[in-house]
Amino acid sequence: MSRIVTLLTDFGISDHYVAAMKGQILARAPEAKLVDITHDIQPGDIQSAAYLLSSCRNDFPKGTVHLAVVDPGVGSKRRPMALEANSRYYVGPDNGIFTLVARAADEPRTRELTRQDLFNSPVSNTFHGRDIFAPVAGSLAAGLAFDQVGSRLADPQELHIPDVSIQKGEIRGTVLHVDRFGNVITDISDNHLRWAEIDRNQFGCEIGNHRIEEVRKFYAGSEDKSFLLIGSGSLVEISCNGNSAADLLGVGRGDDVLVYRVK
Amino acid sequence: MSRIVTLLTDFGISDHYVAAMKGQILARAPEAKLVDITHDIQPGDIQSAAYLLSSCRNDFPKGTVHLAVVDPGVGSKRRPMALEANSRYYVGPDNGIFTLVARAADEPRTRELTRQDLFNSPVSNTFHGRDIFAPVAGSLAAGLAFDQVGSRLADPQELHIPDVSIQKGEIRGTVLHVDRFGNVITDISDNHLRWAEIDRNQFGCEIGNHRIEEVRKFYAGSEDKSFLLIGSGSLVEISCNGNSAADLLGVGRGDDVLVYRVK
Amino acid sequence: MSRIVTLLTDFGISDHYVAAMKGQILARAPEAKLVDITHDIQPGDIQSAAYLLSSCRNDFPKGTVHLAVVDPGVGSKRRPMALEANSRYYVGPDNGIFTLVARAADEPRTRELTRQDLFNSPVSNTFHGRDIFAPVAGSLAAGLAFDQVGSRLADPQELHIPDVSIQKGEIRGTVLHVDRFGNVITDISDNHLRWAEIDRNQFGCEIGNHRIEEVRKFYAGSEDKSFLLIGSGSLVEISCNGNSAADLLGVGRGDDVLVYRVK
Repeated sequence: MSRIVTLLTDFGISDHYVAAMKGQILARAPEAKLVDITHDIQPGDIQSAAYLLSSCRNDFPKGTVHLAVVDPGVGSKRRPMALEANSRYYVGPDNGIFTLVARAADEPRTRELTRQDLFNSPVSNTFHGRDIFAPVAGSLAAGLAFDQVGSRLADPQELHIPDVSIQKGEIRGTVLHVDRFGNVITDISDNHLRWAEIDRNQFGCEIGNHRIEEVRKFYAGSEDKSFLLIGSGSLVEISCNGNSAADLLGVGRGDDVLVYRVK
Repeated sequence: MSRIVTLLTDFGISDHYVAAMKGQILARAPEAKLVDITHDIQPGDIQSAAYLLSSCRNDFPKGTVHLAVVDPGVGSKRRPMALEANSRYYVGPDNGIFTLVARAADEPRTRELTRQDLFNSPVSNTFHGRDIFAPVAGSLAAGLAFDQVGSRLADPQELHIPDVSIQKGEIRGTVLHVDRFGNVITDISDNHLRWAEIDRNQFGCEIGNHRIEEVRKFYAGSEDKSFLLIGSGSLVEISCNGNSAADLLGVGRGDDVLVYRVK
Repeated sequence: MSRIVTLLTDFGISDHYVAAMKGQILARAPEAKLVDITHDIQPGDIQSAAYLLSSCRNDFPKGTVHLAVVDPGVGSKRRPMALEANSRYYVGPDNGIFTLVARAADEPRTRELTRQDLFNSPVSNTFHGRDIFAPVAGSLAAGLAFDQVGSRLADPQELHIPDVSIQKGEIRGTVLHVDRFGNVITDISDNHLRWAEIDRNQFGCEIGNHRIEEVRKFYAGSEDKSFLLIGSGSLVEISCNGNSAADLLGVGRGDDVLVYRVK
């Protein structure tokens, strides 16, 4: 049995924390394939972690174990949990980090991690990534059945995620993420456009004091001018060829976005 | 069949983009060994990608698949391509990123990626790394014959690379790269020195307003003073022990360099 | 035979240097599992490398090969070495980088790397990571017996590490490391507290002009206020929930710390 284990944390890559987790995984699943999603989440930014995990989870085959540790409540009463969703496994703190994944799943199943015999011993108060989550992820990667990780968890924490508001010809949403290139990624999807009867090849957007009505299919083209496109995650994004649209427009995560029909 | 797949992109490591590519590779080649070269290329800097790929390609064994995605033209008419050179495989956009590798090869063979059945479905307009290049790299790593990736590509794009000008006793070149330590790496090789009849243990260099005539064999020695050496890639570099030579001299990529004989 | 090889360097992740080492390892041990500890050590900072390596070495199973290359003396007379300690292997320069590991080991064994037939050929003067250390680490991962890496090394270099001074009720130490979260990690362990008869649940600390007497079990709780805890490496650390304690207190590595009994 050889499973993939992905890792997503806010630990950065300058300390030994991620390596300690990987050692604990490989000690239990010597054949596991380890893949970093990112460790560059801003400390404690659960929402960003939820978005990035959700964006690439299905690029991995069934059976993959996704380990996600953005865990400001480590050591307190927040519970450790696992989730099975669409034949992939998720291990991490019960703080809403898996909300997006669970909502998109057909029949999500959740468990609290109560099997102390699976953990590192002793368990520290401040590094459950190493002592609880990595050991359980390693055990799943080595073939442990999902139901064996602990008792049922009926009420996992939910992340507060603002709703997209859809009317005919008009959608109100927010900025989800700004990526490395300065692309401004919104929570408005191509499905939302269809429901609002907005043409995906011709629409407008208001953000900050800006109004943008050029829609492109790809980034290449004239430079230093913002435009709209449907990005690789099927979400409306505001981009700029050769520059950061976020910098150019002075916008960032959480900002309001209005997408509207153009006659 | 278990092949190595290396990855080199300008995607950074804060987003999910690299992980999405790795998921697509492992979905096709579960036993592939994934190795990051770097994802820290400046957005769109094809020349830097070409240099770094060329610098470490042969540290990997024959059969390795090198996946390189610095792709400002994604979605436009630029073609996706693969290259076989000295028993290693290269997959990425046809924008010159493989020019250095192809020039150094005995009998480079190039193909356009036209086998849509190998791609992710649907193919997005903005993320061919995930939808075209990673799937093809994964297929090669799983054993697909090189000729099966698509039709022949007769005229791959060439990167414009300035020539080194060699006269007896004098070589004019440029700065190729500044590394993490501030080492200033030029395009002048130990072969160029030999052709110009310049002693590799005693030569001089003009760069900016500076003239440097100390040649060392390694970095250790007196500090905070620039010197010359033949680096690990057999290229003339300007270094400084305990400091950044690039900062100290105020020089950077693309700057002119003159290497000359010292009697 | 399939062993883990970890890598810890000051090479950064923007250049091709780490990838070159990985290629050399995989060329010798195609089934090796490669795990990065960090490559973000400040150039030449051997002490920081020693601390991070020591902090996670035992999270990896027996038989793991730890490759550590922070090597300002590359090419000079400093010797290349290997260490066996508690059934794990260490490969790198003989400059004190393994001092902490060797001191904690039961019967450390050290060898100089003298088997040139194991090296890359030719060996450069400036990149022994690629040409000596990675090849030897790869050979060990492929099953080479430890004693076969070279002749005995009787007098490995020792890193100067300031002693912790312990009196009843009072311990003087220094700051070892500041992590990504701004946690200030000292060299005072829970064992030191016990030897000094200081209660681990109630003690005080002087650092800079600050005096801190709140001890917590985990990070969560009121924000923006410094407190003490015993961290995941069993060391006293000064932390701050939601902020960097190092920034807040204006302290950093090497600063003096006094831990004292609170009645």
